[in-house]
Amino acid sequence: MPVMVRNKQVILKDYVSGFPKETDMYMTKSSIELQVPKGSNGVLLKNLYLSCDPYMRPRMTNIKGSYVESFKPGMPISGYGVAKVLDSENPEFKKGDLVWGMTGWEEYSLVTAPQLFKIQHTDVPLSYYTGILGMPGMTAYAGFYEVCSPKQGECVFISAASGAVGQLVGQFAKLLGCYVVGSAGSKDKIDLLKNKFGFDEAFNYKEEPDLNEALKRYFPEGIDIYFENVGGKMLDAVLLNMKIHGRIAVCGMISQYNLDRPEGVHNLMYLVTKRVRMEGFLVRDYYHLYPKFLEMIIPHIKEGKIVYVEDMAEGLESAPATLIGLFSGRNVGKQVVAVAPE
Amino acid sequence: MPVMVRNKQVILKDYVSGFPKETDMYMTKSSIELQVPKGSNGVLLKNLYLSCDPYMRPRMTNIKGSYVESFKPGMPISGYGVAKVLDSENPEFKKGDLVWGMTGWEEYSLVTAPQLFKIQHTDVPLSYYTGILGMPGMTAYAGFYEVCSPKQGECVFISAASGAVGQLVGQFAKLLGCYVVGSAGSKDKIDLLKNKFGFDEAFNYKEEPDLNEALKRYFPEGIDIYFENVGGKMLDAVLLNMKIHGRIAVCGMISQYNLDRPEGVHNLMYLVTKRVRMEGFLVRDYYHLYPKFLEMIIPHIKEGKIVYVEDMAEGLESAPATLIGLFSGRNVGKQVVAVAPE
Repeated sequence: MPVMVRNKQVILKDYVSGFPKETDMYMTKSSIELQVPKGSNGVLLKNLYLSCDPYMRPRMTNIKGSYVESFKPGMPISGYGVAKVLDSENPEFKKGDLVWGMTGWEEYSLVTAPQLFKIQHTDVPLSYYTGILGMPGMTAYAGFYEVCSPKQGECVFISAASGAVGQLVGQFAKLLGCYVVGSAGSKDKIDLLKNKFGFDEAFNYKEEPDLNEALKRYFPEGIDIYFENVGGKMLDAVLLNMKIHGRIAVCGMISQYNLDRPEGVHNLMYLVTKRVRMEGFLVRDYYHLYPKFLEMIIPHIKEGKIVYVEDMAEGLESAPATLIGLFSGRNVGKQVVAVAPE
Repeated sequence: MPVMVRNKQVILKDYVSGFPKETDMYMTKSSIELQVPKGSNGVLLKNLYLSCDPYMRPRMTNIKGSYVESFKPGMPISGYGVAKVLDSENPEFKKGDLVWGMTGWEEYSLVTAPQLFKIQHTDVPLSYYTGILGMPGMTAYAGFYEVCSPKQGECVFISAASGAVGQLVGQFAKLLGCYVVGSAGSKDKIDLLKNKFGFDEAFNYKEEPDLNEALKRYFPEGIDIYFENVGGKMLDAVLLNMKIHGRIAVCGMISQYNLDRPEGVHNLMYLVTKRVRMEGFLVRDYYHLYPKFLEMIIPHIKEGKIVYVEDMAEGLESAPATLIGLFSGRNVGKQVVAVAPE
């Protein structure tokens, strides 16, 4: 007889406009059979860690034809996570496997078309697969090495620099011998950037009345590479400070996600005068590099050459507030929710 | 004894803000010695054709650290032109040479540090060296082949498409087997695009209440390549219609040059969702390709595979009004001023 268990879930109440609130989600309890329907190709997951990522904000809006599927009101939120396979009808996964990839914000998920990676290296914290060893890590890797065309000694600026992606991009840039400056929104984050991640400089954008002046202070000769995570006013200020033949890798624009209409960017003519390449990218185009990425980064983590900071929330109940906190920048480091003990 | 002759000149009265007027320039007569000072490395030019180009608008403003030098109030305007060498102290040029490059808006110019190309092919109209065989031609060539990464069958959109650069980009794209649509600002220009330059479609942006709708009509599947000449609202509409992995070559933004503050562009997040590369460029980085360009284009012109339309104004006196007309789009085709008979 199949075992039925309680399954706590985080449900999106309805599509959101403007700044999302904790009450846009609610907790519910359903029950789930811990067994995959025979011949279904699915897997049954026990979720261990769930990832809070900026791209989840657009999914709370009903956008047709977007690059990500909108969440469905009344259904559990979905996102990246680390999980254990409890049952499998999929030839690629077997009971006991540890995996990371798309799962639900709930205790157990039945995934019918798995988009999951098997976790091979278990001598690093499993939660790292929501961040440095997962989607954000690959994002940093692809964005920096494949999009930025970085060279030793170049001047690199990273916004939202203490987040899951930014902290890693900065460390990659330092490993290559670049001059690296990051911006973030609190003293704690600035301390992290300078004292933990080894950035050359960092500044709190909330304390800068003039972003152009701030950038001129840290980049008197201009910026070769801008790793763009925020958009809006910061992008406009950066455009004024790019060097000739500079590159802007556009990873995201978190400052814009809660606005009904994104802010206007005025200084795009500098793309011409400075011959700047500005390129958007999505990590999904680069997963073929994942094995190469792991091969590079795992030794760096073990040798302490790359460090990583997580902000761990405890329990699925904390997930709605934790996700909302991400959009106001409350987290310090990569935001994770621990759902169940390993 | 050196010969002194009258030298009519077009002088910039003062720096301009907003839309320039004919009265921002005035005609004057000075005199000039038709001889280069010994040992000066200079050349003395008789100007035959002068070129009116969009990039001349920013030069009317006092911008420090721009990619182009501002004009000097009280001095003749400078720009691209075709000229005959009357005297030379420069080893690269001799009396009688025909040249194109930077010269003054006057009958005769003493150029002390020549930035000139010698004209080798004289079996095409000499005025073509202000356009299709000169800076705008090289701009179209470099922008399309080097920046757009074009492929056969792709969907190409060109704004300001009947101008010196746009008309050529469209024909290059057609030669490669692309689907090509252009926008311009009058019925005459639209007729040219469709009936002379062989664009698949063309539309008058002034008659389109919704540019997004217009683009969706001509590009139901989206745009692979946008050759950007105008900026502002058109760019914002294009961003909504780019295909995945599309490219935007930013050549200029003529719709913005007369504004004190450029319009805001709101849809840059589409660079991420569609993984679009947007790249600014300046022709000056590509002049090493000029011989290769001539080798390609001259046979095409002779065989009629590439056509070219000039808007020729007669006489230096017409130059101020002609330049102003460029910024309101009065010209049809490449705007040239004929200064002296060949």
